[in-house]
Amino acid sequence: MIYCSHCGSDAVEWKVPADDNRPRHCCNSCGMVHYINPRVIVGTLPYLDDKVLLCKRAIEPRKGYWTLPAGFMENGESSEEGALRETREEAHANVAIDDLYCVHDIPEINQVYLMYLGRLTDTDFGPGPESTEVELFSEEEIPWAEMAFPVMVENLRAYFEDRKSGNYRLHRGVIYKKDWEKLRARSRDKE
Amino acid sequence: MIYCSHCGSDAVEWKVPADDNRPRHCCNSCGMVHYINPRVIVGTLPYLDDKVLLCKRAIEPRKGYWTLPAGFMENGESSEEGALRETREEAHANVAIDDLYCVHDIPEINQVYLMYLGRLTDTDFGPGPESTEVELFSEEEIPWAEMAFPVMVENLRAYFEDRKSGNYRLHRGVIYKKDWEKLRARSRDKE
Repeated sequence: MIYCSHCGSDAVEWKVPADDNRPRHCCNSCGMVHYINPRVIVGTLPYLDDKVLLCKRAIEPRKGYWTLPAGFMENGESSEEGALRETREEAHANVAIDDLYCVHDIPEINQVYLMYLGRLTDTDFGPGPESTEVELFSEEEIPWAEMAFPVMVENLRAYFEDRKSGNYRLHRGVIYKKDWEKLRARSRDKE
Repeated sequence: MIYCSHCGSDAVEWKVPADDNRPRHCCNSCGMVHYINPRVIVGTLPYLDDKVLLCKRAIEPRKGYWTLPAGFMENGESSEEGALRETREEAHANVAIDDLYCVHDIPEINQVYLMYLGRLTDTDFGPGPESTEVELFSEEEIPWAEMAFPVMVENLRAYFEDRKSGNYRLHRGVIYKKDWEKLRARSRDKE
């Protein structure tokens, strides 16, 4: 933030406001404090029989890598509505939601992931504008080393473990950058 | 948003950007699109024996009404860290988290609630700057008609139901304004 969105002044300073305990974008001209908070990413883990649906990313970041359909939650929608919207947009896929399945925080990039488990209701899927390919993969077929984001590797790992036991439960956790390489290494080991 | 925070221009228009499908704050001068996304509220349901901890609000909105300790999640923290921080700030209370307990969306006000269940580790609690009173209440003692927010009534209702069965599970749902009066009425019935 360079200019105050309230008064247009360039007197915006990164400082701790009165009665607060952490720095914010503060306008020294009009006094407005501009808060920036974490964003929510919503999506689904779509499955059918022993396979899950992945999208190959057509856009940066991680263009050309695979991921689950997900994106920023929008104002005015519930997290489940957002998850279904992203699934339709990125994979043209329709799923029937079972339940909220994974809740992950990535504090270093100010993101919270709410991922829903859902069964594909048909196989009329295909790439939306943000994907180049959309495909079903069994556990053995998943391109583990070509996954775009560690958080989605965690989602898939949870799913295939639960599938073995038949006991699907909510998974949650915190992902730190220092663990990303470990997660990537574990992904490569799976291949 | 009146002025563009990137270039300072007042040519900010609420319109659908190219390659998008919903209106955003768009700067017609520098081309920047300013996204506004839902915010996450994190907090705890602190319990001890058959009682739960509530805070009486010292600030608007709903000043003078009771609530569970919760507030906006901050950048750089996990949702659990944020929940513990809010609990310390508002109630000077220390809890040991059991698990994520309630996930509620309130799409009409662009909020997502992540509430954690946690056992009070001591009784050295007391009001922080945003509370005037902090007290333990059994189910019968809860001031149901003086609860600040319907989402917290849902949290408490879930807890006392689960407590009867001894089976604590994740609760989730969507809260709409049209249901608030119903929730308030149900709260009053409990008294």
